[in-house]
Amino acid sequence: MKWTTKITKVEPNHLVTKGYRQEDLIGNIPYSSVVYLLLKGDLPTKEHGKMMDAILTACIDHGVTPPSSMASRVVASGGVPLPTAVAAGILSIGDAHGGAIEKGAKFLQEGILRMKKENISTGEMAKILVSESKKQNKRILGFGHRIHTQDPRTKRLFELANELQIAGEHMALSNAIEKELSIQTGKNLPINVDGAIAAISSDMGFDWRLGKAFFLLGRVAGLTAHVYEEQSEQKPMRKMFTDESEYSGPSEKDIPDGR
Amino acid sequence: MKWTTKITKVEPNHLVTKGYRQEDLIGNIPYSSVVYLLLKGDLPTKEHGKMMDAILTACIDHGVTPPSSMASRVVASGGVPLPTAVAAGILSIGDAHGGAIEKGAKFLQEGILRMKKENISTGEMAKILVSESKKQNKRILGFGHRIHTQDPRTKRLFELANELQIAGEHMALSNAIEKELSIQTGKNLPINVDGAIAAISSDMGFDWRLGKAFFLLGRVAGLTAHVYEEQSEQKPMRKMFTDESEYSGPSEKDIPDGR
Amino acid sequence: MKWTTKITKVEPNHLVTKGYRQEDLIGNIPYSSVVYLLLKGDLPTKEHGKMMDAILTACIDHGVTPPSSMASRVVASGGVPLPTAVAAGILSIGDAHGGAIEKGAKFLQEGILRMKKENISTGEMAKILVSESKKQNKRILGFGHRIHTQDPRTKRLFELANELQIAGEHMALSNAIEKELSIQTGKNLPINVDGAIAAISSDMGFDWRLGKAFFLLGRVAGLTAHVYEEQSEQKPMRKMFTDESEYSGPSEKDIPDGR
Amino acid sequence: MKWTTKITKVEPNHLVTKGYRQEDLIGNIPYSSVVYLLLKGDLPTKEHGKMMDAILTACIDHGVTPPSSMASRVVASGGVPLPTAVAAGILSIGDAHGGAIEKGAKFLQEGILRMKKENISTGEMAKILVSESKKQNKRILGFGHRIHTQDPRTKRLFELANELQIAGEHMALSNAIEKELSIQTGKNLPINVDGAIAAISSDMGFDWRLGKAFFLLGRVAGLTAHVYEEQSEQKPMRKMFTDESEYSGPSEKDIPDGR
Repeated sequence: MKWTTKITKVEPNHLVTKGYRQEDLIGNIPYSSVVYLLLKGDLPTKEHGKMMDAILTACIDHGVTPPSSMASRVVASGGVPLPTAVAAGILSIGDAHGGAIEKGAKFLQEGILRMKKENISTGEMAKILVSESKKQNKRILGFGHRIHTQDPRTKRLFELANELQIAGEHMALSNAIEKELSIQTGKNLPINVDGAIAAISSDMGFDWRLGKAFFLLGRVAGLTAHVYEEQSEQKPMRKMFTDESEYSGPSEKDIPDGR
Repeated sequence: MKWTTKITKVEPNHLVTKGYRQEDLIGNIPYSSVVYLLLKGDLPTKEHGKMMDAILTACIDHGVTPPSSMASRVVASGGVPLPTAVAAGILSIGDAHGGAIEKGAKFLQEGILRMKKENISTGEMAKILVSESKKQNKRILGFGHRIHTQDPRTKRLFELANELQIAGEHMALSNAIEKELSIQTGKNLPINVDGAIAAISSDMGFDWRLGKAFFLLGRVAGLTAHVYEEQSEQKPMRKMFTDESEYSGPSEKDIPDGR
Repeated sequence: MKWTTKITKVEPNHLVTKGYRQEDLIGNIPYSSVVYLLLKGDLPTKEHGKMMDAILTACIDHGVTPPSSMASRVVASGGVPLPTAVAAGILSIGDAHGGAIEKGAKFLQEGILRMKKENISTGEMAKILVSESKKQNKRILGFGHRIHTQDPRTKRLFELANELQIAGEHMALSNAIEKELSIQTGKNLPINVDGAIAAISSDMGFDWRLGKAFFLLGRVAGLTAHVYEEQSEQKPMRKMFTDESEYSGPSEKDIPDGR
Repeated sequence: MKWTTKITKVEPNHLVTKGYRQEDLIGNIPYSSVVYLLLKGDLPTKEHGKMMDAILTACIDHGVTPPSSMASRVVASGGVPLPTAVAAGILSIGDAHGGAIEKGAKFLQEGILRMKKENISTGEMAKILVSESKKQNKRILGFGHRIHTQDPRTKRLFELANELQIAGEHMALSNAIEKELSIQTGKNLPINVDGAIAAISSDMGFDWRLGKAFFLLGRVAGLTAHVYEEQSEQKPMRKMFTDESEYSGPSEKDIPDGR
């Protein structure tokens, strides 16, 4: 029984990744394009390479507030190796944290398929999707942000996607949904950075199942910096926030007889 | 190439763990004694079984303040499966959190070996160890606690160890060190719960390399309860403490030309 | 902003878990009953305590074949602390590994609710559920095993559930489904250990969302033993199985011009 | 109590990382240079930026054989989210897997300090270090590889370090150690890829405590690809290697009376 892989061939003094010798990639192809190669199966065009690089940078860090950086720092504080603490942060990347890229991309990719099948316009599709989600009382993921109303990362990513002529039908549908949300809900729910990456990566032809991967591959840099900062500037087990916690459970009692 | 293990034999409709059929263990031997079997290689005596059970219970939970419960709850808040969040808490068990059992047990086990080799009394050994650690400016782990001066868990564990006639030379050395610390440093540094488990598990014949295992195997119950509480009573990505964070890095600037 | 918890009150020299002082629990209440207390909110009856203990023991270990023990040993082989390697094993507990308890319990609990609402018998409900799952081409989880046709753990758990008078409507529905599966599919798909725990824990009144918790809380003992065995008996980075792997990716080529 | 960080300032619609606005970094500075910024505190020169990029690419993947890719795939096989499985692979990065960068860099950095203090030549320092390690029966990490005698990644990294004029005293000491190892041990123990990164990152002024970070930040790309390959091309819980395992524990027996 052998393990088969399409990723890397390992022979003595010879390493071939997705067809390319590693010594040819090192120093000749930007790291972010090698990431693209690993996820997509071949090297990107110049434009796709630049876009991929921008997506990773757009995910690097969001301070100490998100669960991932808190988890990494808290775990580092227990006195563990750097990779253990970085991994703890990655574990928090889930449906509620970074998960909007995956779900948003799935929603857009299915929307485009349906649009083609039903032979309707982008605007009509957006109208239907927003109205359906309202009826089902479901949020469309990738719109609105708890802190940013005009996320500078989103603006810059869309600018680049246009410049590099990557913007396509998924970005168009995303923009149409933003407009419809404003019309049908009366609320300003601008595309957020997750929604932007969902739309752009879909226009680049990426599987929505890789949604969390983009976020993870960019954020791992920030998490590493957080762990390093915690380990070099703070004492292990330093006082954190929970000293002020409150107990709201059952009141104190004796163990009943017969147990 | 085969993987060899001394833990469990798996055959169709037949599972044997450390020599015992699993159906014989289930419901006949307390779970905590089965844990002992797994770590020590055979079933405990009644006394060892009771002590093992008490050690696990002494580790179950310490509220939301320690890194492990914070990490588990923060990661749960990202919207991930229960085991992922429980594992994140376990990752924080390190040299500074739960690590005193391992280091304390190593210190005591080496102390006893040295005591026998140098043919000196427990009191003399304690005097030498405390004095050496003072000179090297090293803390002896397992003494003193940031919150508890008379840890109720420690008192109860020692009580049981005496009752069950498990208390032996490691506990004696531990007590002697506590006295010497008070004499030589003038500080009250009572044996804490980690130190108690270090001493008792050493008297039970456990390898100090399992120090973190006792803590982990008890605490995993509390961590599971924390994750369940977070997932059933809180919203994902709820506001935590770090909203009030402060940036102390370089001040804002433009990217220099030529980059 | 304070963190609120119903689990443990922490005050100097005073620890109260779900209402009980920890020093009262230690050595007086079996560890497995304390686990029950943490998950259910109060101490079990004698019968529930015994059943809970049996469930945890039924999950302890299944040799080196499952993903969890492989992951723990492989990670241990990288030269990391024991808790890091144990946590890696726990990470593999997912929809396909240990997940049948959660899904099975959800299925049974929803089945019982529906049965009552539609006012039909257990046998009728089982007939409908099996027939629906056949139509939708969906497996009912908790039935059949890749190795065991008569799992000794299942038999023992059911025996105990009957003895302790815990067996109730969920176990009855589970037995009826087993019969219906045989009638409607012609296959022998006996309740497996996951299915048994799903049924029994449902009869004990546990939330199906805790399904993976039972497995995790028992299996963590086996994983700890695997990590300890790996670290004490094997060299780091020992040869494993993948030396014989095969590359099936794109064939070797030069980087195209202009990249 | 506030959390302080030097990494990122987060204000509404305004994100500043190590002094630079994120919208200025995105699409203007290569992602690998942003990683450098996060770890080193400022943007790299062109030369350092290129070297950093090459180091990350040199770590991307080594097939399915190393513990990290095995762990990621095995955990993915349990049916868990992509980030959980990627994190499991990262957990295996330890003293034996990827750890030679950290230890190698520490050894070289301490060697250079000692060389300056004792005012001796690189050659003399190498002679002393190799001779001391032989006496203490300790391996110098970063030399020799279980598969590659002439690692193509090492050759390419050194080529670049020379071209970019980064090669300095740490690389010189590393080369001198390689020669001395051959003279004093008679064995060919060429600098391996870990050793190359240890030397080059030291010449770039990086703290040796970041040794595992370089490896992690490159390898996370390969691990993500492995998890994606496992999840898209394999069934959950597929047969792996351990079916052929062997039990070497105590032989089957009854539970003794009185337990």
